[in-house]
Amino acid sequence: MTDKTLNCPLPLHYEHIVMAHGGGGRLMQQLLDDYIQPVFNNPLLAAKNDSAVFDVPAGKMAFTTDSYVVNPLFFPGGDIGKLAVCGTLNDLAMSGAKPLYLSCSLILEEGFSLQKLKQILNSMQQVATAAGVAIVTGDTKVVEHGKADGVYINTAGVGVLETALVINVQAIQAGDVIIVSGDLGRHGLAVMLERDGFEFEHNIQSDCADLSGLVQDLLQAGIDIHCMRDLTRGGLASTLIELASHAGLCFELQQAAIPVQDNVRSLCEILGFDPLYIANEGCFALCVPAHHAEKTLALMQQHRLGKQATIIGTVKQEVERGYVSLISEFGIARVLDLFSGEQLPRIC
Amino acid sequence: MTDKTLNCPLPLHYEHIVMAHGGGGRLMQQLLDDYIQPVFNNPLLAAKNDSAVFDVPAGKMAFTTDSYVVNPLFFPGGDIGKLAVCGTLNDLAMSGAKPLYLSCSLILEEGFSLQKLKQILNSMQQVATAAGVAIVTGDTKVVEHGKADGVYINTAGVGVLETALVINVQAIQAGDVIIVSGDLGRHGLAVMLERDGFEFEHNIQSDCADLSGLVQDLLQAGIDIHCMRDLTRGGLASTLIELASHAGLCFELQQAAIPVQDNVRSLCEILGFDPLYIANEGCFALCVPAHHAEKTLALMQQHRLGKQATIIGTVKQEVERGYVSLISEFGIARVLDLFSGEQLPRIC
Repeated sequence: MTDKTLNCPLPLHYEHIVMAHGGGGRLMQQLLDDYIQPVFNNPLLAAKNDSAVFDVPAGKMAFTTDSYVVNPLFFPGGDIGKLAVCGTLNDLAMSGAKPLYLSCSLILEEGFSLQKLKQILNSMQQVATAAGVAIVTGDTKVVEHGKADGVYINTAGVGVLETALVINVQAIQAGDVIIVSGDLGRHGLAVMLERDGFEFEHNIQSDCADLSGLVQDLLQAGIDIHCMRDLTRGGLASTLIELASHAGLCFELQQAAIPVQDNVRSLCEILGFDPLYIANEGCFALCVPAHHAEKTLALMQQHRLGKQATIIGTVKQEVERGYVSLISEFGIARVLDLFSGEQLPRIC
Repeated sequence: MTDKTLNCPLPLHYEHIVMAHGGGGRLMQQLLDDYIQPVFNNPLLAAKNDSAVFDVPAGKMAFTTDSYVVNPLFFPGGDIGKLAVCGTLNDLAMSGAKPLYLSCSLILEEGFSLQKLKQILNSMQQVATAAGVAIVTGDTKVVEHGKADGVYINTAGVGVLETALVINVQAIQAGDVIIVSGDLGRHGLAVMLERDGFEFEHNIQSDCADLSGLVQDLLQAGIDIHCMRDLTRGGLASTLIELASHAGLCFELQQAAIPVQDNVRSLCEILGFDPLYIANEGCFALCVPAHHAEKTLALMQQHRLGKQATIIGTVKQEVERGYVSLISEFGIARVLDLFSGEQLPRIC
């Protein structure tokens, strides 16, 4: 007879989170044993040590983290769980890393539905399984009703770099071609339209997706990627402005080449948003040398998540450096500027 | 002229967090550039890539995460920042790992004081510097006023195992000696007494501290550590019950040997708490073979954080397995049980 003290069942059945679920006692054990372990099910997590311990080869490793506070928790095309896993996988992928392991840290609001929690954890595991990564360590905290908003999730991730390339902003060169992997603006818009008060009929789905497989395809094919960024908060415009600024180069974009779905464009016009500044969660931009551009596009378009991959601009060396210039269909150039805040809060 | 667009100053001066600080635009850049980068100041973070990339040797690596929601944010002996760094360093240390790198992910409540944020970030950096680790990657989210409680911090950490020992619950053996590194109950009590409504005069300080140096001393001296756990949520009792249960062994503790400060003991009696179940943040228990016990104690007592290290019990093989038995000063044994929740919520 093992686990004598832990296996003694509690007389009460809970359907919602209570403060004691975060207390380090029996109820927390039950939450872990009944809701978390069975879903993320892997030996490293099951070992219940303070850290997950695993073997790594000598070489370069990538490490990243993001917290997710999206509102609402469920939206067309995903939920906070899918988002939390995709987002961290994508951050690893953007450094050229192959994701290995993730963590999952939950901040739960007292009163949150355990059924919804289960659904969210299942979403996390589904993406993780498809990506071939395991969620190996975690943490659970509970705060009083009114001190959070259902659930906030932090994921951190580690991955290994199997490429010798140095992929970062310093590697961007004048002459590079700028490619985006897909159409813009769907995630932010899908989340916002799901909020209370919006009653638009629409068929806009978040693009939330794990890009690590697509990136691995490019790396394995020997594409000389200089830099990649997923186009999350602040969208394409903010991301490229930041890159151009740090690289000290000028990015010239052709407005007509930038893919935006018609329904996204129409809704943005009605609502007064600019799709170039709206967050995406399954879309990235990359800079490659011009002679790799066609091969890159062809490879990307073979992948489910890169079918709409398009060249949208080029990197130039100008006297005035560190800005992004958008050339309209009529040939008029305008310099893109950072918004002070963002159009849509809490989209990730 | 580089960073043209980013360096253009905003006309407004902020003393509190606004939603736009989390928006991916100019204000978020300012928050990162003015408050976060200068404090955590290191080249990996300054590179502003989606992941931190670094070299690791071949071998075993540890990976862990915790979110911190302590209330209040500042308490005698520490604050949420110190806690967030110590906690994750300790989780790495408990696996026998030498901590290398940390992440810092902030969930900020709209209206939170930037001055307090600065103080918290400084606390984080102070502990990290002393431990010789860098905070290399991070994330910042802002939620509306009333959707958090000032700030929640997640830290994840990676470390390398330089020891060949396998330190975990499965390594615990009958005959092992159980040692605690210091006196119990101070952290939980110090935090609780700081909350509104308590007006006790007391001199109780949280024990919040980074234990990784002490653990490295033991490993480098060749102590055959079987298992270690820091005594956080649920305190010594819950931690040992969980260990005994998973190990399928019986832990026999001598109540008189367990170190508790007199003022902690008195306050616990007044308030109706049991110090064995109160969280600590700079105290751990370890199981070592009996023939290493004296050497372990001597080494621990040489370290600032182990001066009160004491043998508190032994591991036994009994017919009924998986429980912790506490022997009182009068020789009466009682089996310790997990609380369903905990005595004090939000102490970490």
